[in-house]
Amino acid sequence: MAGNSFGDLFRITTFGESHGPGIGVIIDGTPPGLTITEALIQAELDKRRPGQSDVTTPRKEGDKVEILSGVFEDLSTGTPIALLIRNDNQQSKDYSAIKDLYRPGHADYTFQEKFGLRDHKGGGRSSGRETACRVAAGAIAKIALDQHGISITAYTKSVGDIVAETTDFNEIERNPVRSADAKAADKMATLIKALRAKGDSIGSTIEAVIQGCPAGLGDPVFDKLDAMIAHAIMSIGTIKGIEIGDGFAATTKTGSQNNDEFTTKDGKISTVTNNAGGILGGISNGADIVVRAALKPPSSITVEQSTVTKEGKQTSVQVHGRHDPCIAPRAVPVIEAMLAITILDRLLVQKSIR
Amino acid sequence: MAGNSFGDLFRITTFGESHGPGIGVIIDGTPPGLTITEALIQAELDKRRPGQSDVTTPRKEGDKVEILSGVFEDLSTGTPIALLIRNDNQQSKDYSAIKDLYRPGHADYTFQEKFGLRDHKGGGRSSGRETACRVAAGAIAKIALDQHGISITAYTKSVGDIVAETTDFNEIERNPVRSADAKAADKMATLIKALRAKGDSIGSTIEAVIQGCPAGLGDPVFDKLDAMIAHAIMSIGTIKGIEIGDGFAATTKTGSQNNDEFTTKDGKISTVTNNAGGILGGISNGADIVVRAALKPPSSITVEQSTVTKEGKQTSVQVHGRHDPCIAPRAVPVIEAMLAITILDRLLVQKSIR
Amino acid sequence: MAGNSFGDLFRITTFGESHGPGIGVIIDGTPPGLTITEALIQAELDKRRPGQSDVTTPRKEGDKVEILSGVFEDLSTGTPIALLIRNDNQQSKDYSAIKDLYRPGHADYTFQEKFGLRDHKGGGRSSGRETACRVAAGAIAKIALDQHGISITAYTKSVGDIVAETTDFNEIERNPVRSADAKAADKMATLIKALRAKGDSIGSTIEAVIQGCPAGLGDPVFDKLDAMIAHAIMSIGTIKGIEIGDGFAATTKTGSQNNDEFTTKDGKISTVTNNAGGILGGISNGADIVVRAALKPPSSITVEQSTVTKEGKQTSVQVHGRHDPCIAPRAVPVIEAMLAITILDRLLVQKSIR
Amino acid sequence: MAGNSFGDLFRITTFGESHGPGIGVIIDGTPPGLTITEALIQAELDKRRPGQSDVTTPRKEGDKVEILSGVFEDLSTGTPIALLIRNDNQQSKDYSAIKDLYRPGHADYTFQEKFGLRDHKGGGRSSGRETACRVAAGAIAKIALDQHGISITAYTKSVGDIVAETTDFNEIERNPVRSADAKAADKMATLIKALRAKGDSIGSTIEAVIQGCPAGLGDPVFDKLDAMIAHAIMSIGTIKGIEIGDGFAATTKTGSQNNDEFTTKDGKISTVTNNAGGILGGISNGADIVVRAALKPPSSITVEQSTVTKEGKQTSVQVHGRHDPCIAPRAVPVIEAMLAITILDRLLVQKSIR
Repeated sequence: MAGNSFGDLFRITTFGESHGPGIGVIIDGTPPGLTITEALIQAELDKRRPGQSDVTTPRKEGDKVEILSGVFEDLSTGTPIALLIRNDNQQSKDYSAIKDLYRPGHADYTFQEKFGLRDHKGGGRSSGRETACRVAAGAIAKIALDQHGISITAYTKSVGDIVAETTDFNEIERNPVRSADAKAADKMATLIKALRAKGDSIGSTIEAVIQGCPAGLGDPVFDKLDAMIAHAIMSIGTIKGIEIGDGFAATTKTGSQNNDEFTTKDGKISTVTNNAGGILGGISNGADIVVRAALKPPSSITVEQSTVTKEGKQTSVQVHGRHDPCIAPRAVPVIEAMLAITILDRLLVQKSIR
Repeated sequence: MAGNSFGDLFRITTFGESHGPGIGVIIDGTPPGLTITEALIQAELDKRRPGQSDVTTPRKEGDKVEILSGVFEDLSTGTPIALLIRNDNQQSKDYSAIKDLYRPGHADYTFQEKFGLRDHKGGGRSSGRETACRVAAGAIAKIALDQHGISITAYTKSVGDIVAETTDFNEIERNPVRSADAKAADKMATLIKALRAKGDSIGSTIEAVIQGCPAGLGDPVFDKLDAMIAHAIMSIGTIKGIEIGDGFAATTKTGSQNNDEFTTKDGKISTVTNNAGGILGGISNGADIVVRAALKPPSSITVEQSTVTKEGKQTSVQVHGRHDPCIAPRAVPVIEAMLAITILDRLLVQKSIR
Repeated sequence: MAGNSFGDLFRITTFGESHGPGIGVIIDGTPPGLTITEALIQAELDKRRPGQSDVTTPRKEGDKVEILSGVFEDLSTGTPIALLIRNDNQQSKDYSAIKDLYRPGHADYTFQEKFGLRDHKGGGRSSGRETACRVAAGAIAKIALDQHGISITAYTKSVGDIVAETTDFNEIERNPVRSADAKAADKMATLIKALRAKGDSIGSTIEAVIQGCPAGLGDPVFDKLDAMIAHAIMSIGTIKGIEIGDGFAATTKTGSQNNDEFTTKDGKISTVTNNAGGILGGISNGADIVVRAALKPPSSITVEQSTVTKEGKQTSVQVHGRHDPCIAPRAVPVIEAMLAITILDRLLVQKSIR
Repeated sequence: MAGNSFGDLFRITTFGESHGPGIGVIIDGTPPGLTITEALIQAELDKRRPGQSDVTTPRKEGDKVEILSGVFEDLSTGTPIALLIRNDNQQSKDYSAIKDLYRPGHADYTFQEKFGLRDHKGGGRSSGRETACRVAAGAIAKIALDQHGISITAYTKSVGDIVAETTDFNEIERNPVRSADAKAADKMATLIKALRAKGDSIGSTIEAVIQGCPAGLGDPVFDKLDAMIAHAIMSIGTIKGIEIGDGFAATTKTGSQNNDEFTTKDGKISTVTNNAGGILGGISNGADIVVRAALKPPSSITVEQSTVTKEGKQTSVQVHGRHDPCIAPRAVPVIEAMLAITILDRLLVQKSIR
């Protein structure tokens, strides 16, 4: 209700600002008996960490995770797992220049209107840093899903006008933009660097595929699996759109083109095509679940922009600092994490039904 | 949790199948003291009702709403408002032909996998008829929002490849496709009729604009206003994608093109452009909230399709009956309803904060 | 949140006032495949119905239940089951005498303060009639629990100073006060009739025993099984206290007297005594769960009482009508229902864990 | 759902075991703009801390709280406040003696049955240490309530058979048992010390009074204020019973004795008596809210007890360590905290209604 929790039976609650003592997450509802270590979580966190490559922010953050509870002799106990990530160098920067004005594209103005006051340092609670907590929680969800043979793979599908044409999961971690198309990856990297040189940024899309998901997850009405996924993905700060399966492309098709006919394969009922993206009537049908998300160009740019102060006086601002010119490469693990959390949660709900 | 409720402080819970005794909704958390009558709710329901025009299903359903509780001398009391819509002619049709097979594009197979059994009559709980309950609840939300000067207007943006080019709210109720562009409306109607003649159907998009929404609604993290809207809209059966503001178009833009600069207008802080679609950092900024939804072509077509029986034997099916060849015209009030419910809920949450 | 729902995975939402068109309940999360009929629900409702005997109100209410959804060919489908009970003779009585004053012991004043207006007819939403919905929902919970070998039995433990000394479940339905002690039952009935003759009422206690509940239900911290039970029972209008196992009697005992030692019986671990009442650390331990509830004397009495009008002017009131002089006999099925709902809900949660 | 959260709009989620790195709590929904410091929280924590006096455990725990988030320049920002309390000496003790057996009165057996494994060190998640998080969160709730003129005062009402006869709030912090009756306090202390000398423990009751609570809090049906309070209080490990106002004593009274007549005092409507304990129909009526809780004798005693091993073999156990012989003195701040959290939560809900 208060908005910092997600999930029903597998439920995460995050806290922390980028310039306070630290950030963290409580994960409630982890199945007991899973092997969980700081190293396993850290591996996922390192994918989101700044400073990985020359297409992301050169900012350095350690993002060292500490397990505070819920794990006993490397096994989850079924009680809440709390994870803490201390902030480094939290006092190092001078934010006085932006204290009294509203940065375009940022949540400065809306926080002020919502709460009547705001923590102006580094975006406070709306900092992208909050997503580290999601990735840490997602690492645990992935461990649980792995036991059910469910895997989640996301990758950068487009950067600006450059769209990947092939999909090879093996390529994703071989290039800094996390594209599944090696050729497109080069062009994407070039475009990102060009925009960074200008102090500007660029939009992108990410595609994700969930494999091995059993039929039956999701509910028929308000908690449709696609609705839960949309909620999960749209709750990531930079996302402005989401589609499942053919998504917006389905809007120009006829029913006879778009319906997925049923067939039997290896004695199992399945669909010939997968235009629906693995979800029928809000419930998974056993096919791959395919999700695409639209990411806006990052708001922090050094290009000079017009804005106003808290008192409404016209002024201008350049947002300095080491920011990402394209967020897709670092958002890939965040999207995987939110999908993992959502699917595990629905899996536990379904376990209570049948 | 069990998936038939939506909202936190303004919360609706729906029930009913298309071929049982009736459908209905409990609306919990209606602000006390609002004037609510069956006539006000019926007016909204009539927009969704089948048989309105020659581009929708000719099926006749009365959809007469009865208020069972929560209203005393035409005023909401603050206690749950239950609304009941009896089904007409619930026994009239023979469903034995589809009892043992799975219709492509429908939830037949996934219901079976989820629950281990299914009500095969008319789609059971996954029938589009369930949305009548949303519209009825949305009518009450609209009454409450109206007191805060908030209005919600949705319209058919595209049908197949035909995209509206102008937006005149006055046109919407003047044409059967509910387009805000009179010229496009004619072409859309022609296309829809052509597909119906073939026994086929066509996809579409709907755009919605929320006007008068104050800044400050929505929460910074998981309950971002756009995430709640995405959840609400994607929970409508036919929706395969959603975007806020520029949405997917923002993915090919630079930050300097996409950021909305702040300015002061009539002594009030606002943005020069509205690429963000009225939401910054998950919180409304006072500008119009702009949402677009992708609707798949309806699955019920008389074109013959290949499928399997419950036992996995190959067969084919033609879905007879009076179905909508394009769902946008009748989905417009459903989308308005879900947005009204979402905005009112967040308004009540914000009222508890400041 | 809005307060008319209870339960997480098995969740009920009630609506209705005693003098509107009807009352009802949506039951979400019923396990699919259970045999459910109106007759099975009606049998439970009839236990709560007014006019059963000479120790309860002689008021006649039909309380005929109608299943509106969620049951297909007498089997639960897993979708919401809506139950409707129409009110009889809803316009028959004149409430103008109490319209503008506050009855002592009733919720008239607090409703006015909470909502700013109130439905003064028959107590509106705070009418005891609301509990019929709980009993109807409880009937379904009992059907589900029966499949797991879990049974729930409540009975009147005391009326005024008369306390039952023996417990024979077979006696409960043989006497009008629903006591498990035939001898005490006679004295209780005599006392109740004496008070009714004076236009007064009397307090009472109910004891309930849950048999066959497996170990492992309930959560270690806030959702302890005893906390959920306390919430469930205290949400019944007339209840002013609750205790588990030895309850208040444990406060005068030593640890060595109160701790239940473990032993092995028939190859199964159990406790020698059951002072804890079947719950250890908030989790069921497999022993009988024992609950006692304190019921205040009904507030509706014809004895003249001093009170004030809405404007604060001193006046007096006698509450006429056919009211219960002791509520225990008719509260017994309500308590059983709330316990059944609570236990089934926790059983489904536990099913998602192991 | 997963059971480690409490509250709706003011919502706390706790984590941590007594023998892991630490314990803590996330508090979501704190009103923005409140002055919050570690010192203010520490003051409340120190009341619960072990080693305060000669009637509590001599165990030493620092219980130093650190604010990790949600407070900016000593003001709450409206975002989640995370509090961390590191455990001291977490590795110091040898628990191997109790690793494979079930201590009577403890949650060892039920944890094993629930999760299939358990953290046997110091009670793991069911340790009384978890309540420190509640006290820390309650400190923040108290700061918020103070702004509304609401105060909460709890005190030891009885220890064994010794019942306080007078109530003077000023006495509470002057004696180690936290009794509001100085004379009774002496006898209580004597009894506690005598039992400790024998290695045994004793039960007790706590009474709490909420002053200044406005009328209108709580909901008419399932979220009655008394039901929420019962849930809150019964979720404290040691509680076996709860009553509101006259509670169980009301069960032997008549309606004419028990109903509180209304009157007007200082131009305000109030009741002449307060048998109801400040709650009518589940909604606060503006009078003092009076709550009493039954506390069982602590389970950790050195008296030898019979029990079984995990394999069901008969054995015996003495629970060594520095345990509380009577928990009331240290439970007083826990009960105050849970009441503060409950009342603030309901206050925020009511703010959204009127």
